[in-house]
Amino acid sequence: MLHGKYDPENLFARMIRGGIPCIKIFENSDVLAIMDVFPQSRGHVLVIPKGAEARTLLDFPSGQLAGVMAVLHRIAQAMDRALQPDGIILSQFSGEAAGQTIFHLHFHLIPRYAGQDLAGHGHGIRADSGELQILADAIAARL
Amino acid sequence: MLHGKYDPENLFARMIRGGIPCIKIFENSDVLAIMDVFPQSRGHVLVIPKGAEARTLLDFPSGQLAGVMAVLHRIAQAMDRALQPDGIILSQFSGEAAGQTIFHLHFHLIPRYAGQDLAGHGHGIRADSGELQILADAIAARL
Repeated sequence: MLHGKYDPENLFARMIRGGIPCIKIFENSDVLAIMDVFPQSRGHVLVIPKGAEARTLLDFPSGQLAGVMAVLHRIAQAMDRALQPDGIILSQFSGEAAGQTIFHLHFHLIPRYAGQDLAGHGHGIRADSGELQILADAIAARL
Repeated sequence: MLHGKYDPENLFARMIRGGIPCIKIFENSDVLAIMDVFPQSRGHVLVIPKGAEARTLLDFPSGQLAGVMAVLHRIAQAMDRALQPDGIILSQFSGEAAGQTIFHLHFHLIPRYAGQDLAGHGHGIRADSGELQILADAIAARL
């Protein structure tokens, strides 16, 4: 369903409120940027807007998008410098039919490395927290 | 290669200059929005920034991103109203290893319809121009 009621108990809303731990790269009033614990590749980052109860891009307030994208842009550039991937995918899924699994707007930044396939979205293999923290620190250091 | 020299003869640069025809949805000083002639689903749109010679998101001027994303947001909302898909994917590929094939920054907005698989990126099956024009007009009418 592309449109629906926002559930304030979704995972990302709880992370934003601080009720659930996450591996942070950056946080300001607009955005929480964290490591995806089910990464599709080494260094997979989630950029989560904080300012609105929006399920998808469609219901996100347009006035808040510039601030979110400014941070996303900086994180992509820091990811490039820190991890030196061969490519970076930006993706955002609105609606279950598009692959969305957590219904609070979020953007994926996924490094691509030549010759390495991506793990599928939603593969369910949790990464080692210590390794994710090292990647988060490396990206944060290049912001 | 994620970093490299911008080629001003790339397809999108030539479309922006008007040298190659395209099926337009919207154009302003920031953006050219057109139908993808090799659509991954019915209504696949490309949002192409006009203001910079940038191969990827990484080398795009950060000050120009807000204007581009504001238009992209409006087009996603118009796509939703016009085509009523079950989901919408936003994606952007930086670098050949990420799937980029035309080296001028561009964003994909891809409607998803329940029960229908996406055609692969770069499948090479050209859509009928008349049908694309009808879709472009439908989206433009809901902007």
